[in-house]
Amino acid sequence: MNLILIHPEELTADKRVVLHGQRAKHIRTVLRATPGKTLKIGLLNGPFGRATVEEISGHTVTLHCEFEDTAPPRPRIDLLLALPRPKVLKRLWAQLAALGVGRIILTNAEKVERCYFDSHVIRPDFFNKLLIEGLQQARDTRLPEVLIRKRLKPFLEDELDTLCPETLRLTADPSATARISETVTPDETRRVLLAVGPEGGWTPYELDLLNAHGFSGAGMGDRILRSDTACIALLSILAESLRI
Amino acid sequence: MNLILIHPEELTADKRVVLHGQRAKHIRTVLRATPGKTLKIGLLNGPFGRATVEEISGHTVTLHCEFEDTAPPRPRIDLLLALPRPKVLKRLWAQLAALGVGRIILTNAEKVERCYFDSHVIRPDFFNKLLIEGLQQARDTRLPEVLIRKRLKPFLEDELDTLCPETLRLTADPSATARISETVTPDETRRVLLAVGPEGGWTPYELDLLNAHGFSGAGMGDRILRSDTACIALLSILAESLRI
Repeated sequence: MNLILIHPEELTADKRVVLHGQRAKHIRTVLRATPGKTLKIGLLNGPFGRATVEEISGHTVTLHCEFEDTAPPRPRIDLLLALPRPKVLKRLWAQLAALGVGRIILTNAEKVERCYFDSHVIRPDFFNKLLIEGLQQARDTRLPEVLIRKRLKPFLEDELDTLCPETLRLTADPSATARISETVTPDETRRVLLAVGPEGGWTPYELDLLNAHGFSGAGMGDRILRSDTACIALLSILAESLRI
Repeated sequence: MNLILIHPEELTADKRVVLHGQRAKHIRTVLRATPGKTLKIGLLNGPFGRATVEEISGHTVTLHCEFEDTAPPRPRIDLLLALPRPKVLKRLWAQLAALGVGRIILTNAEKVERCYFDSHVIRPDFFNKLLIEGLQQARDTRLPEVLIRKRLKPFLEDELDTLCPETLRLTADPSATARISETVTPDETRRVLLAVGPEGGWTPYELDLLNAHGFSGAGMGDRILRSDTACIALLSILAESLRI
């Protein structure tokens, strides 16, 4: 935990917050803070700030918070991800938030098992905790927006252009000749939307559909990676290519 | 499993192999192969090849193998990694092999708990299975060499130059101003040795020691990532920078 994130509804009118649980434990036992000490904090979806420890009592820590005027920008990379196996997605949530993703759109694909959409790992009360864990690891305040779209074609046809206008759209494709770092350069100013297929890949029909909606293929060599490894690798290479 | 890896000692003089277990199950139930079908195979630490399914009997599959003349090169990136928590390293083995690492040197550091070195996750009979799983995922035959060095200073002083001569040596450092993709370019011909510190980072003393042995710091932005996420991100960015 490299940043203590405060939820707006936790703040009192006089900018105080009383913490219990993980964050209080971290402040007490890892940071070994005592009253008077200041800590780096962030307001969820808001600015960074500093908190002064006012009181430590039993398992409870009281902070007085001061926030900066402006919030950090939302990460510039969005992810259109064919819903992975629940076990894989469970591992991935915190890592996606840590790497920095503005929006995560989980979608169906031919090679996605329908039953994955019934899993508890795509319920907000499950994944929000993990996303916040990732933000606190990476020192970011911007919670990724998560959308679940069970049908790829209507999403691409009816919603994509409104939701993600003016984006550079890429499909991760091990067979593509263009490499990501050659396709995305530091002078790119648009947001980037990266489509990552299921284990086994998008079908030719799905690739055609993506291409028809402005996506172009880009790769990172000919190794075939597990979905979670691939997501981390692709997002890292994209961020490095954009120098963010 | 995107490649069936055969161990040299499994091959008979007439180039046959009888498979049981995971690989046989994969051939029978996922690939649904029948006698006469050919499969892409690899010889562990050797060349790729093709196998013809000769017989499927119960849980057993018999293949006749033909291999190419030359083996793929050993991955050009080596990793000097402060021993992560056993739980993290367990998750990481297969992913390291999948991403392509020539040599993994696990070392101690000030912020590594000594007891990690007693864990079963650093025993060859534990990690080799996971490394091979990663190779079969990524379609590589080259098993990473794993070295365990409990003391960093003697390793750097007495062994490094013999083991890794003529290497580009980098320390992953979130505070470094140089970015990896600007430090490592596609025309780099040397092997690259990447040093990744423990959760909490190398100490100033350790960083000085690494610098004194030719390492320079390079970063990938200011997010602080978990050890396993950081390893995957760094190795991906390095491979992309080298265009491998």
